[in-house]
Amino acid sequence: MNPLLAGIAPSLIRAINARKRPGDIDLGLGEPTLRPDPAPFEAALARVRDEGLPYTPNAGDSALREAIARCFAFPAMDAAANVCVTVGSEEALYLAIKSVLDPARDEVLIVEPCYLAYPKLCALEGVRHRTVALDAADGFCPRADAVLGALGPDTRMIILNTPCNPTGRVWPAAELRALADGLSARPGAPVYVLSDEVYRELYYTPERPASVADVYPHALVAGSLSKSNALTGLRLGWLMGSAEVIGAATKVHQLVNTAASTFSSHVALEIFRRPETLSAHRPLYAQQRELLMQSLTRHGVAHAPVEGAFYCFVRLPGRWASDSLGAAERLLDEHRVVTVPGIAFGAAGEGWLRLSGVAAPDALAAGIERVAQFFAA
Amino acid sequence: MNPLLAGIAPSLIRAINARKRPGDIDLGLGEPTLRPDPAPFEAALARVRDEGLPYTPNAGDSALREAIARCFAFPAMDAAANVCVTVGSEEALYLAIKSVLDPARDEVLIVEPCYLAYPKLCALEGVRHRTVALDAADGFCPRADAVLGALGPDTRMIILNTPCNPTGRVWPAAELRALADGLSARPGAPVYVLSDEVYRELYYTPERPASVADVYPHALVAGSLSKSNALTGLRLGWLMGSAEVIGAATKVHQLVNTAASTFSSHVALEIFRRPETLSAHRPLYAQQRELLMQSLTRHGVAHAPVEGAFYCFVRLPGRWASDSLGAAERLLDEHRVVTVPGIAFGAAGEGWLRLSGVAAPDALAAGIERVAQFFAA
Repeated sequence: MNPLLAGIAPSLIRAINARKRPGDIDLGLGEPTLRPDPAPFEAALARVRDEGLPYTPNAGDSALREAIARCFAFPAMDAAANVCVTVGSEEALYLAIKSVLDPARDEVLIVEPCYLAYPKLCALEGVRHRTVALDAADGFCPRADAVLGALGPDTRMIILNTPCNPTGRVWPAAELRALADGLSARPGAPVYVLSDEVYRELYYTPERPASVADVYPHALVAGSLSKSNALTGLRLGWLMGSAEVIGAATKVHQLVNTAASTFSSHVALEIFRRPETLSAHRPLYAQQRELLMQSLTRHGVAHAPVEGAFYCFVRLPGRWASDSLGAAERLLDEHRVVTVPGIAFGAAGEGWLRLSGVAAPDALAAGIERVAQFFAA
Repeated sequence: MNPLLAGIAPSLIRAINARKRPGDIDLGLGEPTLRPDPAPFEAALARVRDEGLPYTPNAGDSALREAIARCFAFPAMDAAANVCVTVGSEEALYLAIKSVLDPARDEVLIVEPCYLAYPKLCALEGVRHRTVALDAADGFCPRADAVLGALGPDTRMIILNTPCNPTGRVWPAAELRALADGLSARPGAPVYVLSDEVYRELYYTPERPASVADVYPHALVAGSLSKSNALTGLRLGWLMGSAEVIGAATKVHQLVNTAASTFSSHVALEIFRRPETLSAHRPLYAQQRELLMQSLTRHGVAHAPVEGAFYCFVRLPGRWASDSLGAAERLLDEHRVVTVPGIAFGAAGEGWLRLSGVAAPDALAAGIERVAQFFAA
C-alpha cells in the first residue's frame, strides 16, 4: 500500500457517527436537510433525451465555465479559461494542492480551525504543511497579521475558508486586503491563497462576504453547488484561478477522472442561468440561525459569532477544555446528542464543539437544551 | 507547479483533433455515438423528487455496490466490500495506482499497445513504470509468457486491458490462467493485476471474455457504464478488489472527490437491477464491426483481429512503419479522415493506426475507402 495513506488518520466525525443510536438528536450534520429544486433536473433530462450523454470537455462545458466566471466576476479570473469544473469543491481543493505545489520544496500554511480535509490532502500528496491558529479569545476572527506572521521561506500556499466551517466566521474585506498587500510585498515567487468558498451563499452579515480573489491575483477559489442548493450528491464544483493554474489543474483532472458528470453539468448550467437561485435557500438558513441563536442565548452557551455557513462553534466548559472528543462522546452517550469535537478541526479547535444548525427546529431546540444541561452539570 | 506535470506529454489524440475541419470523416472517436436509454434517468429523477440529493457513502451506495459485486460474481470479490463506486473507470485506474503502490519502491509493468492514461497516471504519481510489448506479427495476441518474462524484482502491478483499446484483442482464458499461475508461483509480495475491463460488454468472440479476477486473488478490476450503455457523461464506474485494497482506495477517493454523483448512482442502480441492459447495445456494435470488416476486407487492409471494443488496429504500409503520426496527419490533411496514430498507444503501436467503428455506416465505409486509397497511393 502507499505509505502516505498510513499517515492519514480516520475521521473523528465518522468515529462519533458510528456511536449514534436511533432517536439521538443529530447536531453533527454537515449537509443541508432541505430539498433541491427539481426543475433543473427536468431540463437536464430533456437534454439527455435530445443529445444522449457524451463527455463534456475535460475542463467542463464551455457555457458552464463562462457562466461561473461571469457570476463571480473576479477581476483576474473572469473568463472560461479561469474555471475548471470539478467533482465538488473537494476535487477543486485536491487539484489546487496537486497541481501548483512541488512536494519536494513547497509548504502549505493552513488557517485553523479548519475543514479536516486540508491537512489530509497535503498528507496524501506528500506536501509539508503547518498551521496557524486564529485566536479563540477573539472568537476565531480571521486576522491577516496572524497569517502573515506565520509565513515561512518555503510557504507557497495558504488555505483559508470563508465563511468558515467550523467557526462560522467570515474574513472581513479589510483583512483580505491586508493579507493580499502583505503577500504582494513579499519578494520571490508568489504565495497562492486557496480560498474555500463552498459556503459563499450562506451568510448573515449585512453584505455578501468578500473573496480574496477580489483583491489578489494569485488567488485560487474552490466552490460548489452542494451547500447553496442542497445538492451535495450532485458532485459539481469548480476551481478558479489564473489560466496557467487552471491549465495544470485540468491536466490532473483529465487523468484522475476525465471530467465531471455531464448530467450534473446540465443541472448546474440551469442554475447559473438564473444566478438568483444560488441564494434561494439563504432566508431559510437565516431562520434556522435565528432559532439557534435564541436557544444558545436562552441557555447562556458561549459561542463564536455565526456570520456564515450553518454551524455554530461553542466553547466547552473549562473541565473539557482539553478533551473535546471526550465531551462529544459523553454528550452522545449520556445526553444523546451528536456533535463534532473541535479537535477534529485541528489543535486550534480543542476545547470547542461544532453544532450544526440544519436539524428540524424542534430537534435543534431540544438538542441545544441538552447541550446546555451537560455544560451546566 | 508540480514538476511531475511537466513530464506528462499532451495528448496526441487531442493534437490530431485540433486539425480536424468541418466535413472530415471522424474515425478517431473514442465514445459511443448511440443514445442511452432515458428510462433509468426518469427513475433517478423520481428519487430526487422524493429524497433530495444527499451524498452517497464515500465508497458508494451499498445497494449499488452489492448489485455490481453480484453482477460480476468474481470468486474473491463478490461482496459490497469489494467495490468502490468511482467517477468513471478513469478514477478506478487512478485509485488503484495511487492506493496500492509505494512510489519509492514499486514498479508497474504496462502491457502495450495500451490506453494512453496508464503511463501518464504512473507519471502523475511518481511511480516507475516499464512496458512489455505484445507481438505485432501475432496481431498483438495477449500472451502470459511475454508478460511473465518481463517482470522485474520491483514489479508490484501489471496493467492490462481486455477487450483492448486500441488492438481489439481479448485475453484468452488460458492465457489469463497461465498469467495467474506464473504470478502465484513467484515468491515475495503479491503482484497485483489491474485489469481494465471498460469494454467488457462489447465482444465478438463466441463467449464473454474471461477476467483475470476469475482466477487470481490479487486482481483489481476497473469498469464503467461509459461504453456498454453509451453513458460516457455519467462518470460512473467501479474499482473491484480485496476488501483491504478497496478500503485504501476509498480513503483516497474520499479525499479527492468525496463520492461519485448520487444521481449517476441512481441511474446505475436501475441498470444493474436489470443486468441484461448492460449488453443491450452489443448487437449494434456487432453490426458496425461487420461493416468495418467488410470494408477492410474489400480493400485488403491488414489489421489485428477485432474480438472486442469498437476499434480496429490497422497496419500501415511499410513507408509509414516508423511514422504513424505523420501518416495520421497526412490522412487527415489530404484525405480528410480522422484516425489515431498507433504511437499514441506506446512504442508497440508504432506503424499502426486506430480506426474507430462507431461512425455512421456511410461515413465508416467512405472513411475506410479513403484510408485504403491512402495506403495504396
